[in-house]
Amino acid sequence: MSYPDELTRLLESNLKELAYGEMPEVAPLGEAMQYSLLAGGKRVRPVLLMATSQAFGRQPEEMLPTAAALEMIHTYSLIHDDLPSFDDDDLRRGQPTCHVKFGENVAILAGDALFAEAFRLICERQQGDAAVLLEVIREISVATGLKGMVGGQYLDVSGIPDDDGEALRLLHSLKTGRLIMACVHCGGLLAGAPEKELTNLRVFAAELGLLFQIKDDILDVVGETAVLGKQAGTDARLDRHTYVSVYGLEEAERLALRSRDEALKALDRVGGSTEALAGITNYIYERHQ
Amino acid sequence: MSYPDELTRLLESNLKELAYGEMPEVAPLGEAMQYSLLAGGKRVRPVLLMATSQAFGRQPEEMLPTAAALEMIHTYSLIHDDLPSFDDDDLRRGQPTCHVKFGENVAILAGDALFAEAFRLICERQQGDAAVLLEVIREISVATGLKGMVGGQYLDVSGIPDDDGEALRLLHSLKTGRLIMACVHCGGLLAGAPEKELTNLRVFAAELGLLFQIKDDILDVVGETAVLGKQAGTDARLDRHTYVSVYGLEEAERLALRSRDEALKALDRVGGSTEALAGITNYIYERHQ
Repeated sequence: MSYPDELTRLLESNLKELAYGEMPEVAPLGEAMQYSLLAGGKRVRPVLLMATSQAFGRQPEEMLPTAAALEMIHTYSLIHDDLPSFDDDDLRRGQPTCHVKFGENVAILAGDALFAEAFRLICERQQGDAAVLLEVIREISVATGLKGMVGGQYLDVSGIPDDDGEALRLLHSLKTGRLIMACVHCGGLLAGAPEKELTNLRVFAAELGLLFQIKDDILDVVGETAVLGKQAGTDARLDRHTYVSVYGLEEAERLALRSRDEALKALDRVGGSTEALAGITNYIYERHQ
Repeated sequence: MSYPDELTRLLESNLKELAYGEMPEVAPLGEAMQYSLLAGGKRVRPVLLMATSQAFGRQPEEMLPTAAALEMIHTYSLIHDDLPSFDDDDLRRGQPTCHVKFGENVAILAGDALFAEAFRLICERQQGDAAVLLEVIREISVATGLKGMVGGQYLDVSGIPDDDGEALRLLHSLKTGRLIMACVHCGGLLAGAPEKELTNLRVFAAELGLLFQIKDDILDVVGETAVLGKQAGTDARLDRHTYVSVYGLEEAERLALRSRDEALKALDRVGGSTEALAGITNYIYERHQ
């Protein structure tokens, strides 16, 4: 059960082909969008979507428009997160961040445009029943809104009380977990998974999101900038609350292991062929970047 | 044929009731969103949507979710436009801009969240056939993406060649015109207007968008800050190309008159009862703010 790298490659070549149209005047903004979008990575979110739909017998190729849209949305969030008034990061995936390369205003607009183009892509390219596509868009808009990704980002910049494990869990379940859940849920929806399986998938996705964030916090402490491709130690520099700062490194490692086990257990209850999803789970637990 | 103020009032009370859920942790971000959303104004975009659907016999109340969503998207664009790395405006609709009041990072997030919540609102609340709603979301995502609002904003910050009327026209048709067209188009779509009428409506909307922008440029020169509710003279301060800087004030006034006449002529070809749309057109031509 290893990471389904073939899905990463599939998505990668699809992202490269994404064209935003033939309007030369705005092409430089399209370049800024592609610059950040093509910076590499494991593409965990779109791979999760495709692996979930595969579990219910669908071809990953069929899911490419929504998969690409989810990666575009993730990229938009990274661009805005890196801005000077947020994390003020200069490095992302081993290259200068979007605002360092193109200027702050172009970076803000690149993020904004990626968000809009993501919805356009789903509407124009994703095959499926209109009612299902509408539910997919609803799920993504909730996952990225006030009670999702952006709300979590707000909690991150506004700060949460010291040593408050509950607040930390909420922050991350909004900032990272909610979109990961949307990836899994939309994969199930597009594959026509029955309601009961959607519920099982959501339990799996909740644990996976938690695991993802705990590992992220651990890597910010023990990881190296060169391997991470982004600045290590950002959390400490920003005096940010993390699983490591709240629980200590050893307990954080223990929590990560528990989340992995819970995620795999939840996966056992899902009816489809979930090998690829298990591979993603193991990868997230073992990753070094 | 006067402005349909009753539609503004209807939208206004709907916006006040908008609740973003009961998650107290993120309530302050919801407040920043509402602060900018409730700053008043004629609500031209949602009123256009409702007036268009009214022309084809639909009740404006039925269109409130999409109408509110369009105003949320417009508000998001204003918040980002006002940021220090864009226009760096301190005043909007007579009150401190979002980033002055809440800080730059919260303002960026308030814009981001308004965009996401706008799509959520349409998915969750707008009545209509799923295929029509999907087409509404597609139209809005195109109008706000790289070849729409955000692309136009990019042209604005990156600059266009001096005295280039064509480039200026493209800039504004993307930045302002495209969303205005989406409002009219979606009003027709949701009302089930036939394809021929949708085409007529788009011709009207194109002229209206042009009129809107020419007047905006004129008001930035001849308007007073107190009446405008935003800083007058911003265009000149930023050395920005406008209809006044490219054509001179007198010619700009003539272009505005011509656009009004063209818009009203286009409206005559639309089959429904278009009194409210004519009222909006006259208001935009005569407005002082």
